Amino acid sequence: MERTWATPPTPPTPPTPPTPPAPPASRTRPARPARVALGIDLHLEPAAGPGLRRGLTDALREAVRSGRLLPGTRLPSSRSLAADLAIARNTVADAYADLVAEGWLTARQGSGTRVATGVPPVRQAAAPAGTAAHQHAYDLRAGFPDVSAFPRTEWLKAARRALTAAPNEAFGYGDPRGRAELRGALAAYLARARGVRADPDRIVICSGFSHGLSLLGEVLRARGADTVAVESYGLDEHWQLLTAAGLRQVPLPFDGLGTDTGELSQGTAAVLLTPSHQFPMGVPLHHDRRAAVVDWARRTGGLVLEDDYDGEFRYDRRPVGALQGLAPDEVVYLGTASKSLAPGLRLAWMVLPPPVAGEVTAVKGGVDTCGAPDQLTLAEFITSGAYDRHVRTARSRYRRRRDALVRALAERAPAIRVTGIAAGLHVVLRLPPGTQHRVVRAAAERGLAVEGLTPRHLHPGAATAPPDALVLGYGTPPDHAWSGALEILCAVLSEPAVISVA
Amino acid sequence: MERTWATPPTPPTPPTPPTPPAPPASRTRPARPARVALGIDLHLEPAAGPGLRRGLTDALREAVRSGRLLPGTRLPSSRSLAADLAIARNTVADAYADLVAEGWLTARQGSGTRVATGVPPVRQAAAPAGTAAHQHAYDLRAGFPDVSAFPRTEWLKAARRALTAAPNEAFGYGDPRGRAELRGALAAYLARARGVRADPDRIVICSGFSHGLSLLGEVLRARGADTVAVESYGLDEHWQLLTAAGLRQVPLPFDGLGTDTGELSQGTAAVLLTPSHQFPMGVPLHHDRRAAVVDWARRTGGLVLEDDYDGEFRYDRRPVGALQGLAPDEVVYLGTASKSLAPGLRLAWMVLPPPVAGEVTAVKGGVDTCGAPDQLTLAEFITSGAYDRHVRTARSRYRRRRDALVRALAERAPAIRVTGIAAGLHVVLRLPPGTQHRVVRAAAERGLAVEGLTPRHLHPGAATAPPDALVLGYGTPPDHAWSGALEILCAVLSEPAVISVA
Repeated sequence: MERTWATPPTPPTPPTPPTPPAPPASRTRPARPARVALGIDLHLEPAAGPGLRRGLTDALREAVRSGRLLPGTRLPSSRSLAADLAIARNTVADAYADLVAEGWLTARQGSGTRVATGVPPVRQAAAPAGTAAHQHAYDLRAGFPDVSAFPRTEWLKAARRALTAAPNEAFGYGDPRGRAELRGALAAYLARARGVRADPDRIVICSGFSHGLSLLGEVLRARGADTVAVESYGLDEHWQLLTAAGLRQVPLPFDGLGTDTGELSQGTAAVLLTPSHQFPMGVPLHHDRRAAVVDWARRTGGLVLEDDYDGEFRYDRRPVGALQGLAPDEVVYLGTASKSLAPGLRLAWMVLPPPVAGEVTAVKGGVDTCGAPDQLTLAEFITSGAYDRHVRTARSRYRRRRDALVRALAERAPAIRVTGIAAGLHVVLRLPPGTQHRVVRAAAERGLAVEGLTPRHLHPGAATAPPDALVLGYGTPPDHAWSGALEILCAVLSEPAVISVA
Repeated sequence: MERTWATPPTPPTPPTPPTPPAPPASRTRPARPARVALGIDLHLEPAAGPGLRRGLTDALREAVRSGRLLPGTRLPSSRSLAADLAIARNTVADAYADLVAEGWLTARQGSGTRVATGVPPVRQAAAPAGTAAHQHAYDLRAGFPDVSAFPRTEWLKAARRALTAAPNEAFGYGDPRGRAELRGALAAYLARARGVRADPDRIVICSGFSHGLSLLGEVLRARGADTVAVESYGLDEHWQLLTAAGLRQVPLPFDGLGTDTGELSQGTAAVLLTPSHQFPMGVPLHHDRRAAVVDWARRTGGLVLEDDYDGEFRYDRRPVGALQGLAPDEVVYLGTASKSLAPGLRLAWMVLPPPVAGEVTAVKGGVDTCGAPDQLTLAEFITSGAYDRHVRTARSRYRRRRDALVRALAERAPAIRVTGIAAGLHVVLRLPPGTQHRVVRAAAERGLAVEGLTPRHLHPGAATAPPDALVLGYGTPPDHAWSGALEILCAVLSEPAVISVA
């Protein structure tokens, strides 16, 4: 039972993926030749800490041994890999040198560092059941940003300024609504960037969107509500949170104009919507339906819960302003740093109509739930302009990925229709009828995690079954894995045995 | 409804306290002449940010205008005030110079900076009801550490190291138990410092003790429990959390040996205890009673919830090891950074017996609730040794305060018995019968917040009513306010009209 540590513990090294075949780089003309010509994408998460060089050496050796890196494969330059992993270039160069000395790699002037020939790959034992999602070398599931792009340096700068300037009381038991600095910063930002009518007194900081939705569920239940309307498509995690709060969900129909808010009924206490960018279908709510939901709320006293999960990312036209701006007394606005910065911050925010603000604070139990240093740092990050700069940079990176995805699919899998491309970090790929399951399985076999549309549909067994489709998150992989993930996706979707109608 | 911000918002300036009279510095010989001879303790929380100089100027001007700073009062040196407020010395010097120029202060070589004579104080309007606790110039309520001593510089250094070394996945959706780095660091620390048998896999990080207790309440309720035994003395916030989870509380008797765990019955699902340092009575649980509770847990399958809220602070003998070390399969250990570092971190931890670990993780809902940067920073803070250094420094500061308190009371209020002095950040002052309410009120009238023992007793109306006493937190004030708080306390407790038995 007892365990002691002689040295500071390091996090466990990540599991090795089950030998996906190397991407068939030579078979087709890739979408972005410069990247794919590199010939390799390394999915490496070396253990942090003083053993970084050794962790990287181990991870590379394991990739060669398992066959993920085939003999002759050219490795990325030490500069490029160091940038992707956010570590010192020397650490990469040292790890390469170690492995050249050990005979795993070869280095030749003008030809870079390559995997040595004559090192036979070892087949791995099968992965334990239930951990499949973590075992993929590539991940294009939706709902995650590229966490390798977290702006560590800028964040640390903001932390230094914020913690140096903070009053002493910042380190005490805080306001249950969250730090005043962050609520003030968000009020200004949301008004400017999302058209939200935000008073810092009516903002409540929470530990991620889920925490906010749980609190709202408790408030609705305490008001005596038993039913919440939801969109036909969405996240089952959210439905489960509502169920846990004792609230039944009634799905609203979905069509080409988005969710049909005209179907909202008198007896519904609230409706959970993604008006700016329906998740996962990717369309904005039609303006008639925006008006309809506001009208419903005013008529019945119902509450609109606006999930603005990725409002920062819109590519081809002006952002759709938040619904809350139209009806601040009827709409609860929910935003999050999970897509714009990182889920690991566990910081989200709600802008609440006056009576709801008090009810949420009461349910929250009188104490702040989020750490003051992280809250103060985010406040400084926003007010200093670093947040805007980061979002702008991320937006153009994601846009380039989306463009590459659309181009590559148009060329290599023209039968696949790509929808929901105007915004966000994901698209929907419409598949030939009856092929969704086969596509997900074929991708998994090649080491690529993707998800079908079916689990995002509230009533899988209902009369209006969802079409065969993939919900594809192009924001998820780090830069060094993006082109490899795209390559596998294109290979799967151009495979006649996979996408032909049965 | 709409509010826009032209400039980054600053937090609101703190409310001005309702004109407490100046401490009667000349009436008695103080406990620590060097500090009290300074003649003034400033309770100032100037607004942070670019307007710091102006915020400080405003706060000082307001203190003079309201009569908190009387004419002729000597102000602390700019170096000393700057250190207390954790701001640049120049900022203080500039604020002083502004106020000298405006005529509020006078500066003379050799006599320092003083409040100008001829500035009449203005009586404030009565404070709104319900905010009294925030209006005191001095605070000796228990349950808070001195947040002005938060080690900002060391924390920022740890943040830099931690965020630079962290793997990318640290910024993604995390393990619901919390970051592996922090759980590993805590396992090592708790084994070494508190005798806890800790496996990182069975540690769950939570947003403060309250969050942990709520999760445990949910687990117990899900197991079908309806009753939890608690100590006769404790925190009503904790009883309320258990009530909210649907659990009735049965109080255990308290006597000179601590809480009587021999009274635990078969039908009780769990017991919430503070074995190392009973809150608020300040005694450790007698070893026979430690054995009795473990025996009860083994016999009945009951769970012991060990609240080790201030285990780091023990002055006169070896720390009492955690009860969990005796019975890791029966005891849930709960620790927190709220007393040792700062409540504002919102970081606490539970070490759980194997089955409970899984149940807590399930109740937690599958996501981490605490921000990764703060968790990674605390992990680095602990493994680098900065945590031990900080605790050691804090311990000797608090011990000096405790010694000063005991000495001052022995001299000026010899009728008051001080108990629970061996550990922690608070003591219990036994008052003459019938005087508790009068003492609390008299202190409040002089601007000092103190709390009686009555609200810390589970059944205020029970046959065994608590004795008249104060629960006094000497850790709460910042250094610059400590001697002033002690002075008012001594004055109140040596006032015959206040402490004579009616």
